[in-house]
Amino acid sequence: MRLSRYFLPVTKETPADAQIVSHKLMLRAGLVRQTAAGIYAWLPLGQRVLKKIEQIVREEQDRAGAVELLMPTLQSAELWRQSGRYDAYGPEMLRIRDRHDRDMLYGPTNEEMITQIFLGNVKSYRDLPRILYHIQWKFRDEVRPRFGVMRGREFLMKDAYSFDLDEAGGRHSYNRMFVAYLNTFARMGLRAIPMQADTGPIGGDLSHEFIILAPSGESEVFYHSNWEKAPELSAVDFDDVAGLQSIVDGYTADYAATDEKRDADREAAAGEALRQSRGVEVGHIFFFGTKYSGSMGMSVQTKDGTNVYPQMGSYGVGVSRLMGAIIEASHDDAGIIWPESVAPYKVGLVNMRVDDAACSAAADDLYRKLESAGVETLYDDRDERGGAKFATMDVIGLPWQLIIGPKGLEKGVVELKRRATGEREELSIDSALKRLGAA
Amino acid sequence: MRLSRYFLPVTKETPADAQIVSHKLMLRAGLVRQTAAGIYAWLPLGQRVLKKIEQIVREEQDRAGAVELLMPTLQSAELWRQSGRYDAYGPEMLRIRDRHDRDMLYGPTNEEMITQIFLGNVKSYRDLPRILYHIQWKFRDEVRPRFGVMRGREFLMKDAYSFDLDEAGGRHSYNRMFVAYLNTFARMGLRAIPMQADTGPIGGDLSHEFIILAPSGESEVFYHSNWEKAPELSAVDFDDVAGLQSIVDGYTADYAATDEKRDADREAAAGEALRQSRGVEVGHIFFFGTKYSGSMGMSVQTKDGTNVYPQMGSYGVGVSRLMGAIIEASHDDAGIIWPESVAPYKVGLVNMRVDDAACSAAADDLYRKLESAGVETLYDDRDERGGAKFATMDVIGLPWQLIIGPKGLEKGVVELKRRATGEREELSIDSALKRLGAA
Repeated sequence: MRLSRYFLPVTKETPADAQIVSHKLMLRAGLVRQTAAGIYAWLPLGQRVLKKIEQIVREEQDRAGAVELLMPTLQSAELWRQSGRYDAYGPEMLRIRDRHDRDMLYGPTNEEMITQIFLGNVKSYRDLPRILYHIQWKFRDEVRPRFGVMRGREFLMKDAYSFDLDEAGGRHSYNRMFVAYLNTFARMGLRAIPMQADTGPIGGDLSHEFIILAPSGESEVFYHSNWEKAPELSAVDFDDVAGLQSIVDGYTADYAATDEKRDADREAAAGEALRQSRGVEVGHIFFFGTKYSGSMGMSVQTKDGTNVYPQMGSYGVGVSRLMGAIIEASHDDAGIIWPESVAPYKVGLVNMRVDDAACSAAADDLYRKLESAGVETLYDDRDERGGAKFATMDVIGLPWQLIIGPKGLEKGVVELKRRATGEREELSIDSALKRLGAA
Repeated sequence: MRLSRYFLPVTKETPADAQIVSHKLMLRAGLVRQTAAGIYAWLPLGQRVLKKIEQIVREEQDRAGAVELLMPTLQSAELWRQSGRYDAYGPEMLRIRDRHDRDMLYGPTNEEMITQIFLGNVKSYRDLPRILYHIQWKFRDEVRPRFGVMRGREFLMKDAYSFDLDEAGGRHSYNRMFVAYLNTFARMGLRAIPMQADTGPIGGDLSHEFIILAPSGESEVFYHSNWEKAPELSAVDFDDVAGLQSIVDGYTADYAATDEKRDADREAAAGEALRQSRGVEVGHIFFFGTKYSGSMGMSVQTKDGTNVYPQMGSYGVGVSRLMGAIIEASHDDAGIIWPESVAPYKVGLVNMRVDDAACSAAADDLYRKLESAGVETLYDDRDERGGAKFATMDVIGLPWQLIIGPKGLEKGVVELKRRATGEREELSIDSALKRLGAA
C-alpha cells in the first residue's frame, strides 16, 4: 500500500483522556478514533491488525475442532426470558424496543441463542459432541468506559459453546479450549496465565481467566515465578482425551490466581517464588453443565432412547481488547512494536527523496518486488521530510523498516532497520529482499 | 471438514413462511435460521458462503483503489442531528437510548460518520482523493421483513464513500465504483444491470442501481436485450480517467431503467429488443456532491489556500442479500447450484459405505489428499444411507460430488458428478484428483 493513497492520521500529541499507554498509542498511530463513549472506529491500519488477530483466533479454534458460524448482534428479549437472564442481567445489557414495540437487546453473549440454534436443530446423541463458535460484535453498556478498546462498550469477541452428552465429555471440550487459548495467545507473542476464576453471571463450577501481565491491568493477580517463562506452542492431538488432560494438568500445576481466588496454602508453598502483579483478562472459559439446556428445556435422545440435557460450556476471547493487550506488552518510547504475526504490514518502505528520480525508481522497484512476493509492505512515497517519515514508522511499529536514500544507492546499498531492537544494517538490494523473504 | 463433526441441519420440508425459492433453499440447505423477525443466524455452511462473497467484494474494492476500515454498528444521534437526517429518517431507523439516556441508533448507513472520521482527521488537498469502505452489519427496521435475507432487518453491507476536491474527480471516483461493481457481480456469476435510479433519502443527482434479473424481484425493470449476454470481467486501469469513462459510457449505452425512471423515447428506439422483467437490487451508487461535507461544515484547504467542501459519493453492496440473489439465479429442483467462486466447499466427498473398511480407507485417503492440496472438501463420513447423502449433496449444491463405493473400488474407479449439469463420470482415483486440482 502506498501511503500517498492511504488514510493514516498519525498524531504527535498525546490525547488528554488517554490514561494508559496502549490507548495513547492506538490514537497516536492512527489505529482507532472514538466515535461515541466507549465506541471506536477502526481506521485502516487498526482494521488490518484486528483482522490478523481475528484470523489467529479462528485458526486455533478450527484446529481444536470447533466449527464456525455467525449469530446476529441483536436478539429477542423472549429468548433471555426463557433462561431467566433477561431480568437478572443488569444495566450493562443494552435494551432496545423496535418499531412494533418488541423488546430486543444487543447481545452481550450468546448462551441462549446458541442453545436454541443448535439444540433446536439436532435430535440425537449422534450430533454430539460439538463446539460452535462465532466472532461477532457485542455490546456491554459499561457505566464508565475507559482505557480505549480495553474497556469499550462495542467490542469484538470470539465466543464458543460446547455441547456434550456427559460431564467427562464436557471436561474434554473445556480442555480443548484451554489449550487452544494458550496457543492462540502464544502466537501473538503473549504469555497468558490461566487463573482459577469466579464464574459470575454465566454460572457454573469450573472457570479460568486467561490473564496477560501488564501494569495497567484492572485485576490484581498472584502467581508462581515459573509463569515468567516465554510463551510456547503446544503441539497436541486435540482428540487425545488423556493427553490433553495431562497438558492442562501441567499448566495448572503452578500457582496462579486472581484476587478473588487466592489460596493461602499454595502461596505459602510458593514462598520466594510468589509474584504479585496486575493483569488484563483476554480470555475466560466456563463449564456450567445443564444450566441453559435445562432451563430452556432442550434435550437430546441418548443411544438407549432416554433424554438428557447436554452439558455445556462457553469460551470467550476479547478480540478487539487483545489489540490493546498486545500493545501494553510490546512498545517502547517511540511507539508500538508489533509481533510479526499481527503486524498490519511486515515492512515499512521509506523513500527518503521522492524528488530524486533514481531514488524513487529504486523504491518503486523494491515496492513492486516485495508486493509480488506477497510481502505486505506499507510504502511511504509521500513528499515529506525524512524525520517525519522515521517518526511515523516508529510509532506504527512495523517489524522492518527498509530505507532508500540517494547516498546509499550510489554505494549500491539500502538500510534495513529492525523495529524491535533498533538494529540498523546497510546491505545490497538483493540481500535486503532475501532477508525480507522476497527473493 | 468431516460431516460427522459438522453442524448441517438439512431439512426435507419446505417451511410455510418461505415464499421465494432462495429463502426456501437457504432454510432447507441449513445455511440460515431465523432468530427474530428479519434477523438470521448464519449456520456454518452459510457463514462460509457469506465470507466468500465478502472476500470477492473486498478484493474488487481494493483493486479499484478503495481503502478498508471498520466503523462501529452503533452511532450517536448527535452525529445525525448535524446533517439533519436524525429527524428526516423514518421509522426504519432503530433508535436506542443507553443507560445514561443518550440517544443512539443502529447505523443504517454511514455518510455522517465517515465524513467526521475522514474530514475530521485530514486538513489538506494532499489527502484527497480517497475512497474508504467498510463491511459491517447494518440495521433497518423494515415494517414487514420478508423473503429471508433478501429483505431482512439486520444485514451485512459493504459501503464505500468517496472524497474528491472537484466534481470531475468525484465523477471519476463514481466510475471506479461503477466498474468495480460490474466486476464484483461478474465474479459471482451474476449479470448485474446498472440502471438509472432515484436517489431517495441519500440525496444527489447521479445514481445507479445494480439489478439482477429474477422473477421474485421486488422491482419492475425495463432493458434492452443486449443486457442478456453473459457477465464478463473488465480488465481495466482504474487510474485511467478517460479509459474508465469510456467503459462506463459503453455499459450505459444500452437502455435499462427501473419503473420510476422509464424513458418512452429510448423504449421506442429499442423496439423489439425491449425487455421487461423483475429484478433484485444488489448494489446502489450515488454521487451527492457537498451534501454532507457542507451540512457538517467539514472543508479542506486547497493548493492556493482557500477552503472547499469535498465532493462525495456513497456506494453500497448488499453482501448478505447477494447470497439470496445468487441462489435465485442458480438452482434447480434438487437444490442450490453454487458458482465455484462462492461455493462453501468445492467438493462433496461421499463415502457410500462407512461400514466397509476398504471403502472408508479409500475415502479417508482421498479426503487427506484433497485437504493437503488445499481443495476445500466437505466429507460425508456419516453412517447414513446413500440416498440421503445424495439428497444432501444436491440441496447444498457444491460444484463437484466425488462418490466412493465398494463396487467401483473393485474396478479401481470412483464417480465424479458435476452438480450444475448432473454429468457423471467414472474415473480412476488419480484422474479424479487431477480433475479437482489436487494432483
